Amino acid sequence: MATKDMDKLVNHAKSTGFVYQGSEIYDGLANTWDFGPLGVEMKNNIKRLWWKRFIQESPYNVGLDSAIFMNPKVWEASGHVGGFSDPLIDCKECKTRHRADKLIEAYDPSVHSEGWSNEQTMSYIKEHNIVCPNCGKSNFTDVRQFKLMFETHMGVVEDDKSVVYLRPETAQGIFVNFKNIQRTSRKKVPFGIGQIGKSFRNEITPGNFIFRTREFEQMELEFFCKPDTDLEWFDYWKSYCKKFLLDLGLKEENLKFRDHEKEELSFYSKATCDVEYKFPFGWGELWGIADRTDYDLSRHMEHSKKSLEYLDPQTNEKYIPYVIEPSVGADRLFLSVLCDSYQEETLENGDTRTVMKLHPAIAPYKVAILPLTKKQSEKAEEVYATLAKHFSVEYDVAGQIGKRYRRQDAIGTPYCVTVDFDTMEDNAVTVRNRDTMEQVRLPIDELVAYIQDKIAF
Amino acid sequence: MATKDMDKLVNHAKSTGFVYQGSEIYDGLANTWDFGPLGVEMKNNIKRLWWKRFIQESPYNVGLDSAIFMNPKVWEASGHVGGFSDPLIDCKECKTRHRADKLIEAYDPSVHSEGWSNEQTMSYIKEHNIVCPNCGKSNFTDVRQFKLMFETHMGVVEDDKSVVYLRPETAQGIFVNFKNIQRTSRKKVPFGIGQIGKSFRNEITPGNFIFRTREFEQMELEFFCKPDTDLEWFDYWKSYCKKFLLDLGLKEENLKFRDHEKEELSFYSKATCDVEYKFPFGWGELWGIADRTDYDLSRHMEHSKKSLEYLDPQTNEKYIPYVIEPSVGADRLFLSVLCDSYQEETLENGDTRTVMKLHPAIAPYKVAILPLTKKQSEKAEEVYATLAKHFSVEYDVAGQIGKRYRRQDAIGTPYCVTVDFDTMEDNAVTVRNRDTMEQVRLPIDELVAYIQDKIAF
Repeated sequence: MATKDMDKLVNHAKSTGFVYQGSEIYDGLANTWDFGPLGVEMKNNIKRLWWKRFIQESPYNVGLDSAIFMNPKVWEASGHVGGFSDPLIDCKECKTRHRADKLIEAYDPSVHSEGWSNEQTMSYIKEHNIVCPNCGKSNFTDVRQFKLMFETHMGVVEDDKSVVYLRPETAQGIFVNFKNIQRTSRKKVPFGIGQIGKSFRNEITPGNFIFRTREFEQMELEFFCKPDTDLEWFDYWKSYCKKFLLDLGLKEENLKFRDHEKEELSFYSKATCDVEYKFPFGWGELWGIADRTDYDLSRHMEHSKKSLEYLDPQTNEKYIPYVIEPSVGADRLFLSVLCDSYQEETLENGDTRTVMKLHPAIAPYKVAILPLTKKQSEKAEEVYATLAKHFSVEYDVAGQIGKRYRRQDAIGTPYCVTVDFDTMEDNAVTVRNRDTMEQVRLPIDELVAYIQDKIAF
Repeated sequence: MATKDMDKLVNHAKSTGFVYQGSEIYDGLANTWDFGPLGVEMKNNIKRLWWKRFIQESPYNVGLDSAIFMNPKVWEASGHVGGFSDPLIDCKECKTRHRADKLIEAYDPSVHSEGWSNEQTMSYIKEHNIVCPNCGKSNFTDVRQFKLMFETHMGVVEDDKSVVYLRPETAQGIFVNFKNIQRTSRKKVPFGIGQIGKSFRNEITPGNFIFRTREFEQMELEFFCKPDTDLEWFDYWKSYCKKFLLDLGLKEENLKFRDHEKEELSFYSKATCDVEYKFPFGWGELWGIADRTDYDLSRHMEHSKKSLEYLDPQTNEKYIPYVIEPSVGADRLFLSVLCDSYQEETLENGDTRTVMKLHPAIAPYKVAILPLTKKQSEKAEEVYATLAKHFSVEYDVAGQIGKRYRRQDAIGTPYCVTVDFDTMEDNAVTVRNRDTMEQVRLPIDELVAYIQDKIAF
């Protein structure tokens, strides 16, 4: 797929009500997006399924919803205040601004310059004569670090003490609550804490639709285990994530599990795996799974002066648990589902249709109720009311039935229920399958169970 | 209930894992709270039930999830940049800072000073000789307006142009998307748009646990209707909200529907009703339901220069829809549920128990699986895995069965399933009801359906 396909997708998402440009009537606000009626249903479904699989069904894990505002000391301990920044350079010729690491990556994708000093970065750029992508010249300012955390002031007095940050990740909310949760839920290691929530990063070069945005939603799990067992659990969660992605319906050929080479690992990490998805604009990171050792809890112990050690009640051993972190962006997962499911099909009779082959559990609407003519409206509304008690239902009365089918195909509704002349007699309806386009006749009484069964996850 | 009861509730919420102080290991960050394993489940349930009732089941409404960052022009149009502030005064004697309107309200609860000019506020304070609640003297500075919106900078250059606000309400995200949504969902007026999301206000005097916080979650519906029909719809949504609250299980005697007097109404509002809940610290606003006329859409039309008129396809009339806004805080609803359900009961045998009589649909865990001894663990884990596919389940193996029942009572788990010696023979379990404490014996095969039926909403 090329940029053209991405544009098509963005247009489709907008015209059907999945994703609009943020603040559009005011000509937008760069890089903000609003999830419309279909988008919010689909995003909620994705979040719900993650929660179901990673929290509800897992005997190990519990959930959390920590505040976006945290004590600034949290971000000192985590290293974000000191180190969470991007290397920035300006082109002296055309005055455009760039991320130095991205210029290097574009020049040679095999080079990972994260963690390089400003000097290392600069000398690589000079040595390889990397040019400005805008004007083609190679005349840059020095590299300087640009802080990625959003700052604001809390309380009545605006001074240094009142600075608070918008969290750049949800993970730290989990680490600082490790002890509280362990104690109150009486969990024994190994156990995990997961949360879904907004994070904020003042990215210099956001882009690719909802792939990289300054405001985004994370689904993070921090799994605490005994130090020697970490690599086993790393594998466990890697498989767990993979199964989840395949169960969601993502095509295996569009997924890549890339284990980091030793030299690529963060200094605190024993193992890291990037799960990448083949977006129309290229492979992009979807899920990061990292063995973070005892780095985070140790830092917080040091900075908070509170013990975050765990006492094993069976062996009486005391240790700082190791952490496996599978962290995925809800917006990126949303985008990969969008890309993966979008199809333009040519049918046997030569007609074409746009269809989103979404897993029924993810589809915004599970069913569309279509009265054949206005005469069936009352009955159709009855069916709507019955079904809407159980799942999200669309109601469409406008236009030819064939057109209405196409409209539902285009937004991924897996089943269309047509209320027709006969319904008034036999209390049955026609159920059309989005993918096979085949129809079955079903008593209205059996509809809920039929659909429930199909949308199970 | 008194302050003592509130303290007890806060302690209970903390010790069981409903709500912790935010950033606690760093001695907290004023007025921030984290929802623990039980809290996040309960809050998610409340949000889900609101969504089910207000979006999924309503034939009128659709959902939205708009960005927290919006174009600053949105807040100029809405009046927030100019007018969203609190009147602040300092006590010259003891140097404490106060909200002038709150001092007046504490002096005479029947006085509503919202919207007063600084001069009006000041002269009322002087006339009635209102004193500083801290030192008892009456020697204040003049009133000045303190802006409630959090500001931050977006992008690389920190200048005036880069200022963005953290949204102080989710409603404006709906108004600016009115046209996009109407067009793409092909909805006809009357219809509504609802959303759930975080909002931020730099409150001067936050407090009362999670009642007033600087970061909070709103559940807002904006319902668009024809100008002459607005008061009918106002009544419709008032009843709808009331039914929802009663269905959640809130006691009617703890709810008050207070219609605003004419002089109390905002200048743009034709009717407003405050739904108040009797918290331990007194009556507090839970839900605001307002007829906002065409104020918001008109403002955005004026400022964006885009038409937000609606063309009635049947009558060909063109008009700016009127808006009914039922807006409730998820955290406040959470708090009222917490207060309403918490009970200390004396049983027939003289024992006491703490029990949270939560509606099963709201309870964090629907069922607790309790193996009688370790010998039943394997079977109990099987039952856990089966049930956890359908709803959130607790597993508790530690301690006497009576103690475990009490623990589940205290967190509101409506059903306890005990796996005992006989289970290995008859494949049946004992199901204990939280409220009646009665037990029934059920085949494991029937458990899911039995519980599903009880937790329906």
